[in-house]
Order: sequence, then C-alpha cells, then structure tokens
Amino acid sequence: MSDNGARPRSPLQTVDRALEVLLSFTERRRDWGVLELAEAFGIDKSTAQRILAALAARGFLSADPVTRRYSLGPTMWRMAAVWERTGGLAALAQRVLEPLAFQTDRTALFAVPDGLHVRCVAAVNGGEPLRSHPLVGELYPANAGATSRGYFAFLDSNERRALISGRVFATFTELTKIDEHELERLFVETVARGYAYSEGEYDYATRALAVPIVLRGRPVGSLSLGESKYPARPDDIRDHLPALQAAAEQLAALLDNRANSAAAPRQARTGRALSPARTSQTGNIGETP
Amino acid sequence: MSDNGARPRSPLQTVDRALEVLLSFTERRRDWGVLELAEAFGIDKSTAQRILAALAARGFLSADPVTRRYSLGPTMWRMAAVWERTGGLAALAQRVLEPLAFQTDRTALFAVPDGLHVRCVAAVNGGEPLRSHPLVGELYPANAGATSRGYFAFLDSNERRALISGRVFATFTELTKIDEHELERLFVETVARGYAYSEGEYDYATRALAVPIVLRGRPVGSLSLGESKYPARPDDIRDHLPALQAAAEQLAALLDNRANSAAAPRQARTGRALSPARTSQTGNIGETP
Repeated sequence: MSDNGARPRSPLQTVDRALEVLLSFTERRRDWGVLELAEAFGIDKSTAQRILAALAARGFLSADPVTRRYSLGPTMWRMAAVWERTGGLAALAQRVLEPLAFQTDRTALFAVPDGLHVRCVAAVNGGEPLRSHPLVGELYPANAGATSRGYFAFLDSNERRALISGRVFATFTELTKIDEHELERLFVETVARGYAYSEGEYDYATRALAVPIVLRGRPVGSLSLGESKYPARPDDIRDHLPALQAAAEQLAALLDNRANSAAAPRQARTGRALSPARTSQTGNIGETP
Repeated sequence: MSDNGARPRSPLQTVDRALEVLLSFTERRRDWGVLELAEAFGIDKSTAQRILAALAARGFLSADPVTRRYSLGPTMWRMAAVWERTGGLAALAQRVLEPLAFQTDRTALFAVPDGLHVRCVAAVNGGEPLRSHPLVGELYPANAGATSRGYFAFLDSNERRALISGRVFATFTELTKIDEHELERLFVETVARGYAYSEGEYDYATRALAVPIVLRGRPVGSLSLGESKYPARPDDIRDHLPALQAAAEQLAALLDNRANSAAAPRQARTGRALSPARTSQTGNIGETP
C-alpha cells in the first residue's frame, strides 16, 4: 500500500490529517461521504477513503452500510470512560482549582451534570473547609444552590424544560425553591446576570458563587466558589467573580485543548504562585463518586 | 520530516499504528513513556515520540511536563459527548433492540448508569406498549426494578457500596425495597443467578427481566425486557432469557467494535427477519433525556 501522489507526504502528517478528520465530526457535521470529505480537506479520494476506513476499522468511526456515509463510532465513548475513571478529568480540573482556591481563599469546586443534579468531580479547600466530609462525588440538586444553578441556568431552555418539567423537588432549607415557575424565573435571572449566587438554599450555613464551563457554545459543568457564612469574611464572595470567570475560561480552554494560549496569560496576570492551597480532593466522574 | 527506517512503511499504516497506540491506554496502563512505548510496539524511539506528540497536539493525549509521560487527554471526552448527543449510542443500541423486541414480543430497553439511577437510552416496543409515555430518558432508581438491578448488581461490590451506602431510597409500591441490607442481598442473589427479575417493585402492573452489558469486565449498562402483567401472556418473560443474553453479548460486541463477528451468527441462528418491531424510540445519553 503506497500513498504517493496524495497530499500529506510524511506518515506523521497523515496521522495528523486523520486526527483532524476525526475532529471534524461535530453536532452540525454528523457524517461525511468520501467525496465530500476529500473535497473539504483538499485530499484525493483514495486517501480520504483510506483515512476513513482506518478510523472505522478501530471503531472511531462507523460506516453506514447503505448510505456509505461515516459517522462517529463507539470507541471514543469507551475511551472517554477510561479517562474519567482513571481520574483524567479530575486531574485536569485540579490545575485550575488550586490557584483559584489559593487566590480567593474559598473552596473551589468543579461539577458536571448527572441527571437532575450536578456532581462534584474535584474540589480544593481554600480558607475554612466548606464541610467536614469530602466534597468529591457529592450531588447537588438542580433546584438548590449556585453550584447546580451555574450549570442548569445556562442550558438551552428547551433542554432544561425537558429535564425539569413536572419533577418533584426536595426541600433542604426554608429557602429552597421547589416551584417550577419560581425556579425558571431564577434561571432566567441567573443568565441575565451571568453568574449564579446562593445563600442557604441547600445548606443554611453556606454561600456560593458559580459560573458555567462553556465548551463550543454548550455548558458542560459549573465552576463554583463556596464559603461558610460563619465566621464572616472581610471580603464578599462576589468580589471574586472576575477570578472565577477567568478560571472558568481557563478550564474550558484545557477541556478544549486550547490550553497553552489560555493558561499562560492568566498565570502572568495574577502574578502569584500557583500553590499550595490547603487540601485537595480529586475523584473520577465514572458511575462511582 | 521523513520517517524512513521506521517500521510502519505507508502513511496509512502509521495512522493505524497511532490509533493502536491510543487504544493501548487502559485502566491498567494509564501512561506511557516514549522508550517504553517504542519497546512495547517494536518501533524506533523517534517514531514513538512523533506518534505521541501528534496525538498530544490534538488533545487525545496529554504529556506530563515533569515526568514526560503521556496519558489520555480531554479530546475523547469532548468527542464522546458529541457522539452521545447526536444519537450515536441510541442508534447503535437500536440495531440490537429491534430484533430482540420482535423476537420476544416484549419491550426491549437499553439503559446506562446515571448517578443512583439508570437512564433509558433507547427502547423498542414489542407487543403491548409498556407505558403510555415515552421511555427514552426515563430514570429507574437503583433500589427498584430489574432494569436498574441488571446494572447495579453487577458492579464491583465496593463501588456499589460507595454509591448506595447511607442513601435514602424512595418507595414506589409496597414491594419496593428500601432497606440497604435487604437490597444488598437482592444484588448478591442477582449476580448468583446471572440476571435480574422484578415484578411490581417500581410499578404494580409491570414485570421485567434484565442482564448487564459487560465491556472488558465492567458493566456499562443494562439490557432489559419488560411487559405489562395484564393481559397475561402464554409465555413467561423469563423464557426469553437466552435471547436477552445473546442480544446483550451482541450489544457489548458493537460497543467494543467486535461487531461483525458477533452480529452475523446471531442473525443466522434466530433465522428471522430483523424487523419490524411495532414502534421505536431513540434518544441521546447527553445531559438531556
């Protein structure tokens, strides 16, 4: 098998081309035919065919036997689960949570959606610990607290309705909202403000501030700062919104593999050492918290 | 950049080698150093280095700046979410659910874990519809019904304890179990039997039979058959255990990219047309059911 005449000349260029092809499958571009792909990438038909076949042979793509069009296959799903279970997501978040907790002197927490909750994937305590038990693996319900609202508010409103409509919500404190319409107003208000704030909705003694992690226009989780109300602090937790937003942008960049461009300026801007926050916890986002 | 002298000679062989390298990251083998990888794959050091660098440049791998070892990166997580949201998982399950529903004349359902529940990803009605509302997106609690037990029972018992211990469970019918120890006994019994069976635990009028989908030794979801108790059927739902088990093996093979070897014999064995089941529903397994 020789590939002379095809555009990418070295084997490693072809590897990169194949990865580029794989990354070209998105929510908008769900499948490719061979000719279409060859044209879009400016490669000859036989190279396009062989790249698609090589990716399909390993299950990264799947070919429709009738239309002969290629779409994503199950391999990435399986590999993503390995990444989550072996702590890859937590380790990546940690790089953002540690400096954030240090800078704000608050507990910094990364959570991802889990049904009608968000689940804490990684947390770093700064200042007073937020709780006496580990935060990693904890679930926060959609109807209470900034950590979950920082994700659910920024969901597409149709998607949110499909999730939330007609559900029965639990009451945690007398400040917990359980009325669907009241919750929806709170979500809309949160989006208008750009961040979620809560005091005592899930837990009397706690305050939190949260923003979404947005990847290619879609929220994939939330980043939040939490503090105990007692003892009172000299600074308001909301004073740290710019730091939280910068960290959220940095985490989105890491998740989107735009790491270098985003991480460097931030580190320079704050001009502080990147460690050590007091204690840190990491966990995976597999089925087990 | 030329790669003469390296083992894989054509660019497409190098693509396949690169994919093979990517797939070599597992729960047991979480990271690779360059030399180690070169040795394991019988390639020269510079090829190993360039393959790892090419995969890292696109975020499929991530290099530790200190140890210079490579582990999985965030790209697969992001791409897996695209696959889920664009219905890839549901479409794949559909290929197994349709013949199963047709053959058994029961509702066939594929569910994946979602916190303390399993979530229905795809369902195909055979015979009487199980419910008047769509099943896709529905959540089944860990403590009630075969669909969830077909997953939770087969989890590693330590993992299950971490998830379930100390939780408060809801009661759905007078047959719902909410005692942790009683549930644990039920899980152990289920594993010994190899399948889960339920009658009226979650819903008075429903019976279900479920088996886990096992991928490389780990349950990743459950496949179940469900029926209304009324009207009574001539055959017992448990008579269809062999068909359910064969379908579960087939779905595992599809998810593991061992599709051809597994799908063909099954089709031949049953000797029946693969369609049409009465109605079918598909959904994605993203955050929104």
